[in-house]
Amino acid sequence: MERICEYSIDSSYGDLITETKYWEIFLAPNQRYLGTCVVSLKRDCGDLKDLNVEEWVDFGKIVKNMEIAIKKLLGQDLFNWSCLKNSVFRKDNPKPHVHWHFIPRYKDITDFEGLKFEDPDFGYLAKPIDRNIPSNVRNNLIETIKNNLNNVT
Amino acid sequence: MERICEYSIDSSYGDLITETKYWEIFLAPNQRYLGTCVVSLKRDCGDLKDLNVEEWVDFGKIVKNMEIAIKKLLGQDLFNWSCLKNSVFRKDNPKPHVHWHFIPRYKDITDFEGLKFEDPDFGYLAKPIDRNIPSNVRNNLIETIKNNLNNVT
Repeated sequence: MERICEYSIDSSYGDLITETKYWEIFLAPNQRYLGTCVVSLKRDCGDLKDLNVEEWVDFGKIVKNMEIAIKKLLGQDLFNWSCLKNSVFRKDNPKPHVHWHFIPRYKDITDFEGLKFEDPDFGYLAKPIDRNIPSNVRNNLIETIKNNLNNVT
Repeated sequence: MERICEYSIDSSYGDLITETKYWEIFLAPNQRYLGTCVVSLKRDCGDLKDLNVEEWVDFGKIVKNMEIAIKKLLGQDLFNWSCLKNSVFRKDNPKPHVHWHFIPRYKDITDFEGLKFEDPDFGYLAKPIDRNIPSNVRNNLIETIKNNLNNVT
């Protein structure tokens, strides 16, 4: 199973936050846009056309819960969702795996655990530019998102 | 209802190809990536979190049918799907409207009606660079996509 993303900085989906019946939710390695996550299908499947009804309905619930949970945490009004799979096609015989990028976008500077996050690209496409954050901040962000998701669902 | 997209070249979703109970499918104004479409929710709704189950299930069917129809027509293996809503947030008091960008990506040069389309960004994010095509080619593309969609469904 391929786990290389356009927005990854270490060729992985990141750290698992939580899971549903059909999907896993990871905090993405790259936190240029604070709260960026990857929502990955649990089974081996390369194309969105092959999702079944239950997987779409479950994904719809995740979208709702993620937008509510992250808005509560960070106050954004804009979230980019995308299923791209570009990076894996740089290789011969690509074996894509269905996953979604969830990227919160910020009009105003956002603070989290003493770190400042701004979105210089607000209103435009997100850029795959790396920003790593300290592991303790990552862990606190994961716990906070997890708690907020639990409070929504 | 806002109809300004990241990938538009004339601030619209483009030309209607067909519709389902909940969504409209447009051929996007910008055909830098041949076959680029916009799938727009019929009702006024600004956030993916507010889609209901029926709308998600209908969208899932569109994804399947679009991927099959466009692959049959143009032979691609890679399709980018994204719901961004960036452009409208450049204004004060944005009123976003849920719509999806469907962008076929090409490893090889693709011909359609005597025009050549290449994807210099294959394996990387699509770029919002304009390419207009003649109206007769647009019309033939719309008819061909419509026929292929009818043959899938």
